[in-house]
Amino acid sequence: MKKFEEKTIETESIYKGKIVDLRVDTVTLPNGKTSKRELIDHPGAVAVIALTKEGKLVMVEQYRKPMEKSLVEIPAGKLEEGEQPKITALRELEEETGYTTEHLEYITSFYTSPGFANELVHIYFTDNIRPLKEAVGTDEDEFVELMEITLEEAVQLEKEERIHDVKTSYALLFLKLKEAQK
Amino acid sequence: MKKFEEKTIETESIYKGKIVDLRVDTVTLPNGKTSKRELIDHPGAVAVIALTKEGKLVMVEQYRKPMEKSLVEIPAGKLEEGEQPKITALRELEEETGYTTEHLEYITSFYTSPGFANELVHIYFTDNIRPLKEAVGTDEDEFVELMEITLEEAVQLEKEERIHDVKTSYALLFLKLKEAQK
Repeated sequence: MKKFEEKTIETESIYKGKIVDLRVDTVTLPNGKTSKRELIDHPGAVAVIALTKEGKLVMVEQYRKPMEKSLVEIPAGKLEEGEQPKITALRELEEETGYTTEHLEYITSFYTSPGFANELVHIYFTDNIRPLKEAVGTDEDEFVELMEITLEEAVQLEKEERIHDVKTSYALLFLKLKEAQK
Repeated sequence: MKKFEEKTIETESIYKGKIVDLRVDTVTLPNGKTSKRELIDHPGAVAVIALTKEGKLVMVEQYRKPMEKSLVEIPAGKLEEGEQPKITALRELEEETGYTTEHLEYITSFYTSPGFANELVHIYFTDNIRPLKEAVGTDEDEFVELMEITLEEAVQLEKEERIHDVKTSYALLFLKLKEAQK
């Protein structure tokens, strides 16, 4: 669907980074006027809702520089170029949690900030995980701590805003709905 | 919580825009090494889950330049400096949908992209809306079309990826859970 399409007249590349690129597009609006759009290009990401045999949520705590605080989140990571999201999801699960699985179910995907960024996050679910025999470890500039908590504990952490990002809040609603529909 | 804190050694401002600022921080990692963090500063946003008397979801369709397609979303908008999120939520509901309300319930807030942006979205709910006597209109560079659809219709649009952003997917889960708990 292209309703109210905004055609690009000019693109100005401002920055090309490791994670994000920033450009400013001059566009024609539906009424014929022009405007500027600040646009972030992002490779996309994956996140995994993973439950242990005991039904505990596998979470990671890490420092999030944009907010200057650490957050408890479901395992996640960004897509490498050309990588299938499901492969990334398995890799991030293994690297960040030390678990692996043969049963990764695709749930949905969504854009996180459609007003200014094209980051698309793919969500997977598994309740069938096992510990890896050998740890694989995270990226060299990534420090995470593994947590295994009940849904009730996660809801409490959300109230305390230690869980405070949308993919994790989505995961908690997803699990609450699963329980309610049992 | 400051676990694994990354202290800023240097900040380089790359761009200051109307919606986003971009900076690159050089940080000290927990292991003493240094790394770079690409960081987007965003003023934050609000979104409103609004139901008509008939239980239909009030949605807006608009063109989203980062994805080069139009998306159907719950009404939303960014915070003005110093504005209370609830005031913004009411203003955006009025501007984008022509409805108003005296009953706006705060649901939650979440960061949308904690890896690279500090955008915080505040979510509100109302099932008690009435049409404004006089339309207020949207921002001059904003073109939206109002839709009123059932939850089932919204779920179908999500399957077709015409609904494809996280705050709206969150809203659909929120309403499904509300129904399941009735």
